[in-house]
Amino acid sequence: MQLSLIAIGTTSQPWVKDGVEMYNSRLSRYTKYSYVETPNLKGKHAKADPARMMKEEASVADKHLQGVDHLVLLDEHGPQMGSVQLANHLQGLMNRGLRHTAFLIGGPYGYDPSLRERAHATWSLSKLTFPHELIRICAAEQLYRAHTILKGEPYHHP
Amino acid sequence: MQLSLIAIGTTSQPWVKDGVEMYNSRLSRYTKYSYVETPNLKGKHAKADPARMMKEEASVADKHLQGVDHLVLLDEHGPQMGSVQLANHLQGLMNRGLRHTAFLIGGPYGYDPSLRERAHATWSLSKLTFPHELIRICAAEQLYRAHTILKGEPYHHP
Repeated sequence: MQLSLIAIGTTSQPWVKDGVEMYNSRLSRYTKYSYVETPNLKGKHAKADPARMMKEEASVADKHLQGVDHLVLLDEHGPQMGSVQLANHLQGLMNRGLRHTAFLIGGPYGYDPSLRERAHATWSLSKLTFPHELIRICAAEQLYRAHTILKGEPYHHP
Repeated sequence: MQLSLIAIGTTSQPWVKDGVEMYNSRLSRYTKYSYVETPNLKGKHAKADPARMMKEEASVADKHLQGVDHLVLLDEHGPQMGSVQLANHLQGLMNRGLRHTAFLIGGPYGYDPSLRERAHATWSLSKLTFPHELIRICAAEQLYRAHTILKGEPYHHP
Protein backbone atom coordinates (compact mmCIF):
# COMPACT_ATOMS: atom_id res chain seq x y z
CA MET A 1 0.00 0.00 0.00
CA GLN A 2 1.31 3.40 -0.96
CA LEU A 3 1.39 6.04 1.78
CA SER A 4 1.36 9.80 1.44
CA LEU A 5 1.74 12.49 4.04
CA ILE A 6 0.47 15.78 2.65
CA ALA A 7 0.98 19.02 4.57
CA ILE A 8 -0.77 22.24 3.66
CA GLY A 9 1.74 25.05 3.22
CA THR A 10 5.52 25.07 3.17
CA THR A 11 7.67 24.98 6.29
CA SER A 12 9.72 28.03 7.11
CA GLN A 13 11.69 26.47 9.97
CA PRO A 14 14.83 24.57 8.94
CA TRP A 15 14.57 22.32 12.03
CA VAL A 16 11.08 21.22 10.96
CA LYS A 17 12.39 20.34 7.49
CA ASP A 18 15.28 18.38 8.98
CA GLY A 19 13.09 16.49 11.47
CA VAL A 20 10.51 15.53 8.83
CA GLU A 21 13.26 14.57 6.41
CA MET A 22 14.89 12.24 8.94
CA TYR A 23 11.71 10.21 9.42
CA ASN A 24 10.73 10.42 5.73
CA SER A 25 14.03 8.90 4.78
CA ARG A 26 13.65 6.07 7.32
CA LEU A 27 10.04 5.38 6.33
CA SER A 28 10.91 5.19 2.64
CA ARG A 29 12.90 2.04 3.35
CA TYR A 30 9.67 0.25 4.39
CA THR A 31 7.04 1.26 1.88
CA LYS A 32 6.27 3.33 -1.18
CA TYR A 33 5.93 6.71 0.47
CA SER A 34 5.73 10.34 -0.55
CA TYR A 35 5.78 13.51 1.47
CA VAL A 36 4.30 16.66 -0.03
CA GLU A 37 4.11 20.23 1.18
CA THR A 38 1.69 22.32 -0.86
CA PRO A 39 2.86 25.81 -1.92
CA ASN A 40 1.83 28.72 0.28
CA LEU A 41 -1.07 30.74 -1.05
CA LYS A 42 -0.31 34.21 -2.28
CA GLY A 43 -2.39 37.35 -2.13
CA LYS A 44 -3.66 39.66 0.52
CA HIS A 45 -6.81 37.73 1.36
CA ALA A 46 -4.87 34.68 2.53
CA LYS A 47 -4.68 35.59 6.20
CA ALA A 48 -7.68 37.92 6.23
CA ASP A 49 -10.25 35.34 5.17
CA PRO A 50 -9.67 31.88 6.66
CA ALA A 51 -12.70 30.33 4.90
CA ARG A 52 -11.49 31.41 1.47
CA MET A 53 -7.96 30.32 2.32
CA MET A 54 -9.13 26.83 3.35
CA LYS A 55 -11.14 26.53 0.13
CA GLU A 56 -8.08 27.35 -1.98
CA GLU A 57 -5.94 25.00 0.11
CA ALA A 58 -8.46 22.22 -0.57
CA SER A 59 -8.24 22.85 -4.29
CA VAL A 60 -4.43 22.65 -4.15
CA ALA A 61 -4.52 19.49 -2.00
CA ASP A 62 -6.88 17.90 -4.54
CA LYS A 63 -4.04 17.61 -7.06
CA HIS A 64 -2.19 15.33 -4.67
CA LEU A 65 -5.20 13.13 -3.90
CA GLN A 66 -5.50 11.52 -7.34
CA GLY A 67 -5.53 7.76 -6.91
CA VAL A 68 -5.91 8.01 -3.12
CA ASP A 69 -8.53 5.49 -1.99
CA HIS A 70 -8.31 6.22 1.75
CA LEU A 71 -7.99 9.76 3.11
CA VAL A 72 -7.28 10.48 6.76
CA LEU A 73 -7.42 14.04 8.11
CA LEU A 74 -5.21 14.81 11.08
CA ASP A 75 -7.53 16.65 13.43
CA GLU A 76 -7.10 17.24 17.14
CA HIS A 77 -10.82 16.61 17.66
CA GLY A 78 -10.69 13.16 16.03
CA PRO A 79 -10.17 9.82 17.79
CA GLN A 80 -6.75 9.02 19.22
CA MET A 81 -4.80 5.81 18.77
CA GLY A 82 -1.77 4.38 20.54
CA SER A 83 1.25 3.57 18.36
CA VAL A 84 0.54 -0.19 18.26
CA GLN A 85 -3.09 0.52 17.46
CA LEU A 86 -1.99 2.75 14.57
CA ALA A 87 0.28 -0.02 13.26
CA ASN A 88 -2.60 -2.49 13.41
CA HIS A 89 -4.89 0.00 11.75
CA LEU A 90 -2.46 0.40 8.84
CA GLN A 91 -2.20 -3.38 8.57
CA GLY A 92 -6.02 -3.51 8.43
CA LEU A 93 -6.08 -1.04 5.54
CA MET A 94 -3.53 -3.18 3.66
CA ASN A 95 -5.60 -6.30 4.37
CA ARG A 96 -8.64 -4.58 2.87
CA GLY A 97 -6.64 -4.23 -0.36
CA LEU A 98 -6.48 -0.45 -0.29
CA ARG A 99 -3.84 0.84 -2.63
CA HIS A 100 -3.06 4.36 -1.51
CA THR A 101 -3.69 5.92 1.90
CA ALA A 102 -3.04 9.63 2.37
CA PHE A 103 -2.71 11.48 5.67
CA LEU A 104 -3.46 15.17 5.38
CA ILE A 105 -2.23 17.87 7.79
CA GLY A 106 -4.31 21.03 7.48
CA GLY A 107 -3.11 24.60 7.71
CA PRO A 108 -3.42 26.75 10.85
CA TYR A 109 -7.19 27.25 10.41
CA GLY A 110 -8.21 23.67 9.71
CA TYR A 111 -10.06 22.06 6.81
CA ASP A 112 -12.47 23.22 4.15
CA PRO A 113 -15.83 21.37 4.40
CA SER A 114 -15.16 19.73 0.99
CA LEU A 115 -12.15 17.93 2.46
CA ARG A 116 -14.12 16.81 5.51
CA GLU A 117 -16.77 15.31 3.22
CA ARG A 118 -14.18 13.53 1.17
CA ALA A 119 -12.23 12.08 4.10
CA HIS A 120 -12.75 8.50 5.29
CA ALA A 121 -11.42 9.07 8.80
CA THR A 122 -9.91 11.60 11.17
CA TRP A 123 -7.01 10.99 13.51
CA SER A 124 -5.87 13.00 16.51
CA LEU A 125 -2.25 12.77 17.62
CA SER A 126 -3.02 14.38 20.99
CA LYS A 127 -5.61 16.30 23.00
CA LEU A 128 -3.09 19.13 22.94
CA THR A 129 -3.07 21.69 20.16
CA PHE A 130 0.29 21.58 18.41
CA PRO A 131 1.58 23.87 15.64
CA HIS A 132 0.76 22.39 12.24
CA GLU A 133 4.48 22.43 11.46
CA LEU A 134 5.47 20.37 14.50
CA ILE A 135 2.65 17.92 13.69
CA ARG A 136 4.52 17.07 10.46
CA ILE A 137 7.47 15.66 12.37
CA CYS A 138 5.19 13.79 14.81
CA ALA A 139 3.11 12.24 12.02
CA ALA A 140 6.13 11.16 9.95
CA GLU A 141 7.68 9.61 13.05
CA GLN A 142 4.51 7.68 13.87
CA LEU A 143 4.17 6.32 10.34
CA TYR A 144 7.80 5.19 10.53
CA ARG A 145 7.29 3.72 14.02
CA ALA A 146 4.18 1.84 12.84
CA HIS A 147 6.25 0.09 10.18
CA THR A 148 8.95 -0.93 12.66
CA ILE A 149 6.18 -2.34 14.88
CA LEU A 150 4.70 -4.35 12.00
CA LYS A 151 8.16 -5.76 11.24
CA GLY A 152 8.79 -6.58 14.91
CA GLU A 153 11.85 -4.33 15.03
CA PRO A 154 13.26 -2.99 18.31
CA TYR A 155 12.73 0.75 17.65
CA HIS A 156 9.46 0.76 19.61
CA HIS A 157 9.60 0.00 23.31
CA PRO A 158 6.64 1.56 25.14
CA MET B 1 6.57 30.64 39.61
CA GLN B 2 9.81 29.31 38.21
CA LEU B 3 9.53 26.60 35.56
CA SER B 4 12.08 23.97 34.60
CA LEU B 5 12.05 21.44 31.82
CA ILE B 6 14.60 18.72 32.55
CA ALA B 7 15.43 16.10 29.92
CA ILE B 8 17.42 12.98 30.70
CA GLY B 9 20.35 12.65 28.31
CA THR B 10 21.74 14.99 25.68
CA THR B 11 20.28 15.40 22.22
CA SER B 12 22.32 14.21 19.30
CA GLN B 13 20.03 15.62 16.61
CA PRO B 14 20.70 19.26 15.65
CA TRP B 15 17.08 19.73 14.59
CA VAL B 16 15.89 18.71 18.08
CA LYS B 17 18.24 21.27 19.64
CA ASP B 18 17.03 23.98 17.29
CA GLY B 19 13.35 23.19 17.85
CA VAL B 20 13.67 23.14 21.64
CA GLU B 21 15.77 26.31 21.57
CA MET B 22 13.12 28.16 19.55
CA TYR B 23 10.42 27.51 22.14
CA ASN B 24 12.78 27.94 25.10
CA SER B 25 13.69 31.38 23.87
CA ARG B 26 10.03 32.34 23.42
CA LEU B 27 9.01 30.94 26.81
CA SER B 28 11.80 32.80 28.62
CA ARG B 29 10.08 36.06 27.78
CA TYR B 30 7.09 35.04 29.93
CA THR B 31 8.53 33.47 33.06
CA LYS B 32 11.68 32.48 34.89
CA TYR B 33 12.47 29.32 33.00
CA SER B 34 15.37 26.92 32.62
CA TYR B 35 15.91 24.00 30.28
CA VAL B 36 18.38 21.31 31.28
CA GLU B 37 19.68 18.23 29.49
CA THR B 38 21.52 15.89 31.82
CA PRO B 39 24.84 14.44 30.57
CA ASN B 40 24.72 11.00 28.96
CA LEU B 41 25.84 8.17 31.18
CA LYS B 42 29.11 6.55 30.34
CA GLY B 43 30.19 2.97 30.69
CA LYS B 44 29.31 -0.32 29.11
CA HIS B 45 26.42 -1.14 31.39
CA ALA B 46 24.41 1.88 30.29
CA LYS B 47 22.46 0.18 27.55
CA ALA B 48 22.80 -3.35 28.86
CA ASP B 49 21.04 -2.74 32.17
CA PRO B 50 18.06 -0.39 31.92
CA ALA B 51 17.26 -0.59 35.68
CA ARG B 52 20.75 0.48 36.66
CA MET B 53 20.76 3.16 34.00
CA MET B 54 17.48 4.62 35.29
CA LYS B 55 18.83 4.62 38.83
CA GLU B 56 21.89 6.59 37.77
CA GLU B 57 19.75 8.93 35.71
CA ALA B 58 17.63 9.61 38.80
CA SER B 59 20.70 10.45 40.80
CA VAL B 60 21.85 12.91 38.12
CA ALA B 61 18.36 14.44 37.83
CA ASP B 62 18.31 14.94 41.59
CA LYS B 63 20.92 17.69 41.30
CA HIS B 64 18.50 19.72 39.22
CA LEU B 65 15.54 19.22 41.55
CA GLN B 66 16.85 21.28 44.46
CA GLY B 67 14.21 23.84 45.41
CA VAL B 68 11.57 22.23 43.18
CA ASP B 69 8.29 22.06 45.11
CA HIS B 70 6.20 20.48 42.34
CA LEU B 71 7.55 17.72 40.11
CA VAL B 72 5.68 16.46 37.04
CA LEU B 73 6.88 13.38 35.14
CA LEU B 74 6.06 13.24 31.46
CA ASP B 75 4.70 9.74 31.00
CA GLU B 76 2.62 8.40 28.15
CA HIS B 77 0.53 6.40 30.64
CA GLY B 78 -0.40 9.48 32.69
CA PRO B 79 -3.50 11.65 32.27
CA GLN B 80 -3.78 13.87 29.21
CA MET B 81 -4.75 17.54 29.16
CA GLY B 82 -5.79 19.86 26.37
CA SER B 83 -3.68 23.01 25.91
CA VAL B 84 -6.19 25.31 27.65
CA GLN B 85 -6.47 22.82 30.49
CA LEU B 86 -2.68 22.80 30.84
CA ALA B 87 -2.66 26.61 30.96
CA ASN B 88 -5.33 26.59 33.69
CA HIS B 89 -3.44 23.89 35.54
CA LEU B 90 -0.27 26.03 35.57
CA GLN B 91 -2.33 28.99 36.77
CA GLY B 92 -3.68 26.78 39.57
CA LEU B 93 -0.14 25.88 40.67
CA MET B 94 0.76 29.59 40.76
CA ASN B 95 -2.39 30.33 42.76
CA ARG B 96 -1.36 27.70 45.31
CA GLY B 97 1.82 29.70 45.84
CA LEU B 98 4.18 27.06 44.47
CA ARG B 99 7.57 28.51 43.71
CA HIS B 100 9.22 26.10 41.32
CA THR B 101 7.55 23.51 39.08
CA ALA B 102 9.74 21.09 37.13
CA PHE B 103 8.68 18.90 34.22
CA LEU B 104 10.90 15.87 33.74
CA ILE B 105 11.32 13.93 30.49
CA GLY B 106 12.73 10.46 31.12
CA GLY B 107 15.20 8.55 29.00
CA PRO B 108 14.18 5.82 26.54
CA TYR B 109 13.47 3.28 29.31
CA GLY B 110 11.38 5.47 31.62
CA TYR B 111 11.78 6.38 35.29
CA ASP B 112 13.50 4.91 38.29
CA PRO B 113 10.97 4.11 41.08
CA SER B 114 12.60 6.77 43.31
CA LEU B 115 11.54 9.46 40.83
CA ARG B 116 8.01 8.09 40.63
CA GLU B 117 7.74 8.26 44.42
CA ARG B 118 9.01 11.77 44.50
CA ALA B 119 6.75 13.11 41.71
CA HIS B 120 3.52 14.98 42.47
CA ALA B 121 1.91 14.29 39.11
CA THR B 122 2.34 12.64 35.73
CA TRP B 123 1.34 14.13 32.40
CA SER B 124 0.89 12.41 29.05
CA LEU B 125 1.26 14.46 25.88
CA SER B 126 -0.38 11.76 23.77
CA LYS B 127 -1.56 8.15 23.68
CA LEU B 128 1.14 7.66 21.06
CA THR B 129 4.68 6.72 21.99
CA PHE B 130 7.05 9.44 20.79
CA PRO B 131 10.86 9.45 20.92
CA HIS B 132 12.03 11.09 24.12
CA GLU B 133 13.93 13.62 22.01
CA LEU B 134 10.88 14.73 20.02
CA ILE B 135 8.93 15.03 23.30
CA ARG B 136 11.34 17.80 24.31
CA ILE B 137 10.19 20.04 21.48
CA CYS B 138 6.52 19.20 22.12
CA ALA B 139 6.78 19.93 25.86
CA ALA B 140 8.64 23.22 25.41
CA GLU B 141 6.07 24.30 22.82
CA GLN B 142 3.16 23.48 25.16
CA LEU B 143 4.69 25.39 28.07
CA TYR B 144 5.16 28.37 25.76
CA ARG B 145 1.61 27.99 24.37
CA ALA B 146 0.17 27.81 27.90
CA HIS B 147 1.70 31.19 28.70
CA THR B 148 0.29 32.81 25.56
CA ILE B 149 -3.13 31.41 26.54
CA LEU B 150 -2.87 32.86 30.06
CA LYS B 151 -1.97 36.25 28.56
CA GLY B 152 -4.83 36.08 26.04
CA GLU B 153 -2.43 36.31 23.10
CA PRO B 154 -3.41 35.17 19.59
CA TYR B 155 -0.84 32.34 19.18
CA HIS B 156 -3.35 29.69 20.23
CA HIS B 157 -6.38 29.13 17.99
CA PRO B 158 -7.75 25.63 18.42
